[in-house]
Amino acid sequence: MSEGQAATPGSAERYARASLSFLADPGDAVLGMLLRSARPGNVLDVIASRCPGPASLLPRPAVSDDGSAPLSTTLVDRAVERWRSKLGDLPSSARLAAWEGGGYRLVCPGDAEWPTQLDDLGAARPVVLWLRGSVDLRFSCLRSVSVVGSRAATAYGTHVGTEMAADLAGLGWSVISGGAYGIDASAHRGALAVGGCTVSVLASGLSFGYPKGHAGLFAEIERTGVMVSECPPERAPTRPGFLVRNRLIAALSRGTVVVEAALRSGAINTARHASELNRAVMAVPGPVTSERSAGCHELIRECGATCVTGARDVVEMVAPLGDAGSGSAREPVVAAGNLDPVTASVLAAVARRTGRGPATIATLAGVDLDTALRCLGLLAAAGHVERCDQGWRVRRLG
Amino acid sequence: MSEGQAATPGSAERYARASLSFLADPGDAVLGMLLRSARPGNVLDVIASRCPGPASLLPRPAVSDDGSAPLSTTLVDRAVERWRSKLGDLPSSARLAAWEGGGYRLVCPGDAEWPTQLDDLGAARPVVLWLRGSVDLRFSCLRSVSVVGSRAATAYGTHVGTEMAADLAGLGWSVISGGAYGIDASAHRGALAVGGCTVSVLASGLSFGYPKGHAGLFAEIERTGVMVSECPPERAPTRPGFLVRNRLIAALSRGTVVVEAALRSGAINTARHASELNRAVMAVPGPVTSERSAGCHELIRECGATCVTGARDVVEMVAPLGDAGSGSAREPVVAAGNLDPVTASVLAAVARRTGRGPATIATLAGVDLDTALRCLGLLAAAGHVERCDQGWRVRRLG
Repeated sequence: MSEGQAATPGSAERYARASLSFLADPGDAVLGMLLRSARPGNVLDVIASRCPGPASLLPRPAVSDDGSAPLSTTLVDRAVERWRSKLGDLPSSARLAAWEGGGYRLVCPGDAEWPTQLDDLGAARPVVLWLRGSVDLRFSCLRSVSVVGSRAATAYGTHVGTEMAADLAGLGWSVISGGAYGIDASAHRGALAVGGCTVSVLASGLSFGYPKGHAGLFAEIERTGVMVSECPPERAPTRPGFLVRNRLIAALSRGTVVVEAALRSGAINTARHASELNRAVMAVPGPVTSERSAGCHELIRECGATCVTGARDVVEMVAPLGDAGSGSAREPVVAAGNLDPVTASVLAAVARRTGRGPATIATLAGVDLDTALRCLGLLAAAGHVERCDQGWRVRRLG
Repeated sequence: MSEGQAATPGSAERYARASLSFLADPGDAVLGMLLRSARPGNVLDVIASRCPGPASLLPRPAVSDDGSAPLSTTLVDRAVERWRSKLGDLPSSARLAAWEGGGYRLVCPGDAEWPTQLDDLGAARPVVLWLRGSVDLRFSCLRSVSVVGSRAATAYGTHVGTEMAADLAGLGWSVISGGAYGIDASAHRGALAVGGCTVSVLASGLSFGYPKGHAGLFAEIERTGVMVSECPPERAPTRPGFLVRNRLIAALSRGTVVVEAALRSGAINTARHASELNRAVMAVPGPVTSERSAGCHELIRECGATCVTGARDVVEMVAPLGDAGSGSAREPVVAAGNLDPVTASVLAAVARRTGRGPATIATLAGVDLDTALRCLGLLAAAGHVERCDQGWRVRRLG
């Protein structure tokens, strides 16, 4: 059984993964490769010198299955040294629990809310995701498009980004972006304006919330969409962190649209990630007299990006054949009649309008709290229930 | 020997072809197919009832070699009937001579100035071309790009058309367009502004000069470029004639750039002709908020047109490999040292700065007038000499 299909991770693994996300930088390739064969707890134990040296983590023989260079003992030794130097940053399990109690969700591979398309990233798959917001990340991303572009956007780019996102949301597609000024913000706002779902993937921790000027926007996204980061909540962003973050924006969605970008924009980097991941790569043309559209034109000319002029063109690229983008896939992906009896009883215990806490739901369904939580996660990922201030409620369609 | 490679046509064939251009509409497919096997004089004789009926023109068996339906007797009968009804429009040979004396050049397949790439049109090849202007059409089109677009152009389109044409001309490429308002005019003017060569292919006769408002522009093009029409000089344009004319714009050049066009613009029709003729098809993107760029975006999205943002992109598509667009091909295509002795003696007799009449050149070269005229045509097509007010002079490079 590969790691991505593992059963729901236990609390020890969750704590180990959360800890590793404090010690290693996002996208750390050595950690990603180690986690393909070693358990997160083992890696953490080696770092904390609680068990034999780093060499014990290496698979025998030390091979990689994705064509990258296999791990060497030297590489692992150096990485462990690097991670060990940050052991002082580790939060207590009480601190982690406080975050989780305060609206942060720590999602690990194997969790119902984990978007399995991130497994396409191979060794660059995030160790954990930190989330805040009212919708289920996995369900939100089933029909999603990433809409990205320059921070220094023109009025044209902002207009097109807003319209594109609003129209995509109106067609039942979630809009993923990076929460930056300019095109990213226009994409989030366009989706919000029509009551659509938007997903913001930050390069900083969610509590740090970079850029600070978007605190209001992020709060609004939390109410109807979801905020995502692979960094611990209070982590400040780093310059390379933005490029590393872009792989998540590309991997989460079915395709990436670059609305407006100069030749060396970070949005071009996101498009390249999308291309490497075999996702659709699209670009919106603009005036050839505008340097801010030069990156889009280069993507179309040189990189095979599809020239798109509106949401219809985008949906044509990313929708499965026969799906006209009517929004029908916003319905649950597993019909209620096909749920197993335990999960069905939990769904029956969720209130239709007002929220209900998980303990109440467990009691009403006649199951223990852990089972209720597990079933609620699955029901959210399948699009049946959603979080609200009071706990969980049946998700409203449309 | 196919018609396109025939020897220089004699005066009887020239008169017959000129006459047929008065009787048949441009691009008449029946006439084009007949001329693949019958001589122009024979066709004219049948129309004028000077020899047996239309059936005598049909090849035995009546086949077509380009996959089109073979000619039927009925089809030819009807066509001859149609052409016969216009016999009253035929000019006298004196009238034709007066036009030729007044600056019009009647160019037929087989003439040195005939652009042989028009033979790619098959049965739709024009019967004759009427030209006015100082440069050799065949030589001008060796390195040429067609730059076309909407008549109702925006300020953006006009700006881009002018810049594109000026830059192409600066790189040594001739700019071909249709002489219309809007993008066509901007293309001609851009090339003229930098002293480049531009070729205008009208849907009306050259003396009619449609649109009338461009009389000044056409006069300017004649001074440094060349005006082209397959219609007799005084012919008014017809609505379908514009679409028929577009095939010439597409066929003359190595590629067609659509600068700005709405979805149903005639420029899209030119691009389709270019595509059918295996010429490069290119389109300039614009704001997706502008309906006037929607045709360009459709060409890029749906028809495989290359997205080009400037002259460098265009040259990359149309230049032979290794030709960086330095303008070097504006040099003669046959070196003076490789000319035959008679042609070389005629070249030696052409003056370097001021023009010299053909009779003087013939005398100086020691050849008869017909030989001098034939050699001058070849020298012009190869880029050695050019016409001027006083006759012929050595072409200045650059």
